[in-house]
Amino acid sequence: MAQELPEYAIIVAGGSGSRMQHDTPKQFIPVAGKPILMHTIERFYNYSPTIRLIVVLPKEQLETWRELCKTYSFTIFHMTVPGGASRFESVKNGLGAVMGNGLVAVHDGVRPFVEVETIKAAFEAAANYGSGVVVVSPKDSIRELISKGSISVPRANYKLVQTPQVFTAEILKKAYEQHDQGYFTDDASVVESIGEKITLVEGSYRNIKITTPEDLILAEAFAKEQL
Amino acid sequence: MAQELPEYAIIVAGGSGSRMQHDTPKQFIPVAGKPILMHTIERFYNYSPTIRLIVVLPKEQLETWRELCKTYSFTIFHMTVPGGASRFESVKNGLGAVMGNGLVAVHDGVRPFVEVETIKAAFEAAANYGSGVVVVSPKDSIRELISKGSISVPRANYKLVQTPQVFTAEILKKAYEQHDQGYFTDDASVVESIGEKITLVEGSYRNIKITTPEDLILAEAFAKEQL
Repeated sequence: MAQELPEYAIIVAGGSGSRMQHDTPKQFIPVAGKPILMHTIERFYNYSPTIRLIVVLPKEQLETWRELCKTYSFTIFHMTVPGGASRFESVKNGLGAVMGNGLVAVHDGVRPFVEVETIKAAFEAAANYGSGVVVVSPKDSIRELISKGSISVPRANYKLVQTPQVFTAEILKKAYEQHDQGYFTDDASVVESIGEKITLVEGSYRNIKITTPEDLILAEAFAKEQL
Repeated sequence: MAQELPEYAIIVAGGSGSRMQHDTPKQFIPVAGKPILMHTIERFYNYSPTIRLIVVLPKEQLETWRELCKTYSFTIFHMTVPGGASRFESVKNGLGAVMGNGLVAVHDGVRPFVEVETIKAAFEAAANYGSGVVVVSPKDSIRELISKGSISVPRANYKLVQTPQVFTAEILKKAYEQHDQGYFTDDASVVESIGEKITLVEGSYRNIKITTPEDLILAEAFAKEQL
């Protein structure tokens, strides 16, 4: 039997709330009675109570987060790390807290509905193949913008990427040694750029990223259903 | 001033309810007190009370629809046309009711939240350029499946396609004279295949296609907000 590698989750919450038309940073907006970020952390804790949780937050929000944890009596053990100027920098800062070997999930702080089964599948893929990146099939037709306009492309050839994205600590650290290329929109693209192959894991449409006021409505509805 | 062309909307509702885990065809599921399809029709009526509404339904649902219209005292004037074995055939059947010149919108029966402004913009684009196809930018990273796995592609180069998709009657009819190529997932791809250029119109994330139980939750929440 293979030796179990320690598991980490870097939960990145860098939102300011501007797109949300909300004063509160989106990760702190309460859904079903508590901040979104707490729901997200709970999902990973439910997957594994021994997972090492690294929460990356903008430096100026760390104090607020500590207060929130007190107010809500939130006791799941986690460390906090100040974020950087970009998502790339934030993940890199989070990675600084990963020591030695292991498997590392990177997850959006505002994806609180990720299923435990999805987390499990992504870690398993990473254990077996080096990476496990959660994707879903697009429901809509897709057009590609080209110099002369746009063309229809077969949607069956595309996947929409979610998180978690799990990698071995070794691969992820090596990938994050490079400079931010600007066009990185997720960790898979960072890891891929150093020549590593990406293994896809099928996720679910429930695992939404809460970024707009519409998403918040859906989040409340999902949360109510689960109470 | 250009002469105004008559405007048509072919509203295609072919769903059986299977993906919805629901006995009722999804277009007939009530949201905020009445079937989804009625909300959809109302949006086009609100855009223009003189628009010619062609509702395409599976043959075996026509009687149920008539009953529903009575039950809900739904009085917006529209004609109904029996659908075909595929979406392609259904649109083609709807097109059979379009006589002479005009602008024709094709719209999913289960997109009840389309904004009047979006419908207007799509018709205007079609009047000026021959087509107006509503799209939004993907929020997620995108990966393209290739023979050896998958690669990250720049999401800024892609658009997710919604409806309405508006064309001149002439172009749309010509496009639908061909055989169904199997890979057509929307009208833009049908029209494009005869060499016509597609003009894109920016839509909104509210214009969801109700296909899964999750979508239904969101629909209820949206509808409640608007009451």
